[in-house]
Amino acid sequence: MSQKPTIPKGTRDFGPQQMAKRNFIFKAIKTVFEKYGFMPLETPTMENLSVLTGKYGDEGDQLLFKVLNSGDYLSKASEEEISGGSKSLLPKISEKGLRYDLTVPFARYVVMNQHDLALPFKRYQIQPVWRADKPQRGRYREFYQCDADVVGTESLICESEIILMINEVFAQLGITDYNIKINHRQILKGITEAIGAEGKESEFCVAIDKLDKIGLEKVLKEMEDRGISAEAAQKSVPILELSGSIEEKIAKLKDIFKDSESGKKGLNDLEEILETLKSFELDNNHIDFDVSLARGLSYYTGSIFEVKVNNVSIGSVSGGGRYDDLTGVFGLKGLSGVGFSFGVDRIYDVLEELNLFPTDATTSTEALIVHFDEETKKYGLSVLNQLRKAGIKSEIYPDKAKPKKQFTYADKKNIAYTIVIGSDEMASGNLTLKSMASGQQDQLALDAIIDKITGHNE
Amino acid sequence: MSQKPTIPKGTRDFGPQQMAKRNFIFKAIKTVFEKYGFMPLETPTMENLSVLTGKYGDEGDQLLFKVLNSGDYLSKASEEEISGGSKSLLPKISEKGLRYDLTVPFARYVVMNQHDLALPFKRYQIQPVWRADKPQRGRYREFYQCDADVVGTESLICESEIILMINEVFAQLGITDYNIKINHRQILKGITEAIGAEGKESEFCVAIDKLDKIGLEKVLKEMEDRGISAEAAQKSVPILELSGSIEEKIAKLKDIFKDSESGKKGLNDLEEILETLKSFELDNNHIDFDVSLARGLSYYTGSIFEVKVNNVSIGSVSGGGRYDDLTGVFGLKGLSGVGFSFGVDRIYDVLEELNLFPTDATTSTEALIVHFDEETKKYGLSVLNQLRKAGIKSEIYPDKAKPKKQFTYADKKNIAYTIVIGSDEMASGNLTLKSMASGQQDQLALDAIIDKITGHNE
Repeated sequence: MSQKPTIPKGTRDFGPQQMAKRNFIFKAIKTVFEKYGFMPLETPTMENLSVLTGKYGDEGDQLLFKVLNSGDYLSKASEEEISGGSKSLLPKISEKGLRYDLTVPFARYVVMNQHDLALPFKRYQIQPVWRADKPQRGRYREFYQCDADVVGTESLICESEIILMINEVFAQLGITDYNIKINHRQILKGITEAIGAEGKESEFCVAIDKLDKIGLEKVLKEMEDRGISAEAAQKSVPILELSGSIEEKIAKLKDIFKDSESGKKGLNDLEEILETLKSFELDNNHIDFDVSLARGLSYYTGSIFEVKVNNVSIGSVSGGGRYDDLTGVFGLKGLSGVGFSFGVDRIYDVLEELNLFPTDATTSTEALIVHFDEETKKYGLSVLNQLRKAGIKSEIYPDKAKPKKQFTYADKKNIAYTIVIGSDEMASGNLTLKSMASGQQDQLALDAIIDKITGHNE
Repeated sequence: MSQKPTIPKGTRDFGPQQMAKRNFIFKAIKTVFEKYGFMPLETPTMENLSVLTGKYGDEGDQLLFKVLNSGDYLSKASEEEISGGSKSLLPKISEKGLRYDLTVPFARYVVMNQHDLALPFKRYQIQPVWRADKPQRGRYREFYQCDADVVGTESLICESEIILMINEVFAQLGITDYNIKINHRQILKGITEAIGAEGKESEFCVAIDKLDKIGLEKVLKEMEDRGISAEAAQKSVPILELSGSIEEKIAKLKDIFKDSESGKKGLNDLEEILETLKSFELDNNHIDFDVSLARGLSYYTGSIFEVKVNNVSIGSVSGGGRYDDLTGVFGLKGLSGVGFSFGVDRIYDVLEELNLFPTDATTSTEALIVHFDEETKKYGLSVLNQLRKAGIKSEIYPDKAKPKKQFTYADKKNIAYTIVIGSDEMASGNLTLKSMASGQQDQLALDAIIDKITGHNE
């Protein structure tokens, strides 16, 4: 007896029901991305390790899945390398790794195709990535990322459009209660200058990034641990606790930043982004200017975003920001851009928690033909042909089976209607249409059945 | 200066133009699969090597991409294993591999979920697979497969529906000149019985599988090399050269198979498949009964298919067949099914060769707003807002730039229309709509522009 098969930990199968729900999310995101002029890109699952290594820090290098070279993979390794342990042997036996995020492959693509691309280049990319993280609830070793980036322009219209896209995707998904937190790296720099902690910007960011998790007291302690003076840390408190409308916060910061060019630049950008949004007549743009938003990734240099859905157990579901050097690491300097990402697994959980998946997102086949014998089955085939010609997703139970079994099949597969064909139905031409949800049955001619099912879909 | 990055050999990036064309193909296939009641499934990229190994023959095992265990991957290996060479070390340092096809993961999924599935289970799966083959023209190390299978029924309606789906997908793609070759493993068995080569069925299949490539003489030689007598080989010639209509071929074979139960069973199945197809009123079902069709995969036990597009340089673009034991290798016996697969890369090449990609499959953004200064750009934002509210994929050139540069961007990105906004246009409200294909320019109010662009899409 063979052993029952398993899948690698941290990975998942997506069966029909989950696929239908996931596709509901992907479709909303793709539709909006394309409406805003973003075009799809797909890159290979495997990248050369020379492309991946060193881009995600030491921890990231550890979490890369590495692919063993084909064939006699030890043939390139010397005896010393073989006996030298995992680290010494690695470069000799593995040259490729699995995609760790979508940003590095995107940068690699831009550099390789720099002479053919129309700049600014707006691309979206929806593909899985792999990380050898310890699997836990909500954290997988294979998961999808959905990124959209514009590179080759410093125009702040792009920032405004990201906010618009987030609003539009959430509207399509039915999510209404959420905040788009926005901040700017130059504002954070301005704060460090204003409190007398100039040059300690990244330490400051690392500390305040934990504000939600550990609270203000511990954040201040962390600042001091990272070399910011107690006095400077204390001076940051009223700034981190700024309240009021966006305009009020900006007004207060203008005063605080009177000697900080960085701070002024950040505020100007923010004002321009908000001004641009006014041309788009949103009732509520959901924006929340949060001076304590830092976002960990060090490559952001301008605006930064993070989106939280309110009243659910899940944290941020989207985030991004502007960077001024995407491709320098591959030899192409000075390419600025701005991008953001949707966390599909988290959005999935949010929609489940808020019960927002529409029922027809999980409907599969629309109609199943139920029959009693060879003769009614044969008649059912021509009915099936007519249903499909009308564009109705339909099937016939392929085997001879008791009606109960056929109805059970329809139930299990979440099929909306059954069309029952017995000898009476064949004789009269009026077939029995049963709604599986309500149990209601009607005797109808095929034309009327088609109208009813297609009408039901409108 | 850093080195220019590359991608692993045998892999590809799919840029916006290629993605649009590929999505045209995927959409046609998905639409048809779902219309016939097939539901999507996705399985993880990595499978345990215990699931993959031994399923694809020795050559397949060699061609599996293996993923190195995370962390100190050598820690589980003894010194003897480390010094014992690639083969001895492999099981200690790698437990996972990349998906090699979609059939084995499907079988694994069915076994793991056997108690929850509605049988018959109809699933389709469109995902990449990886093979460490030597890359060459048209052969990649990462490529997509598109499979549809029904398991848990022996009904021949499934075979008929596969033929219908192939017809319908090709109709959607605009491919009209093609043949669906059909044969049956029991007919092949019947032939070996009829020619006196009983029990040599797989040798016979391996030989005739090469008929197209090496010709009849060499096939007969190959039969003899594989232990079929010269007399038996000669007796197969008139059968392999059978001509006439499907009905005529069946009639001749009925005579030949009068003592072969297998042969009769194969012919009966074929007749039933053809009979069922009649309920679906096809003008031309493109079927060609080819008794020399063998298909290499040994797990087929019933009908087999292969689809060739005529008058193109590419070989078969689709194929499949019935198997009577999908999951036995994972301990679940007796699950019969039938499935088939579309070769997306090959279909892509066929559509390119026949120039069948519709132009709107490669259109991206529908309209670009072209402006001259800050004021016209700002006006353009509100125009952009109206376009998007009307569902038009549109964008504004985000930077201040000369009109020529903005038009070049539109050209490069294959944008259908530009909407030019100068001070005259702002004053009059009549904007300049330029068709990038024809060069024609019209002065129109925004409403008229929206009508024209959306009408153009109908």
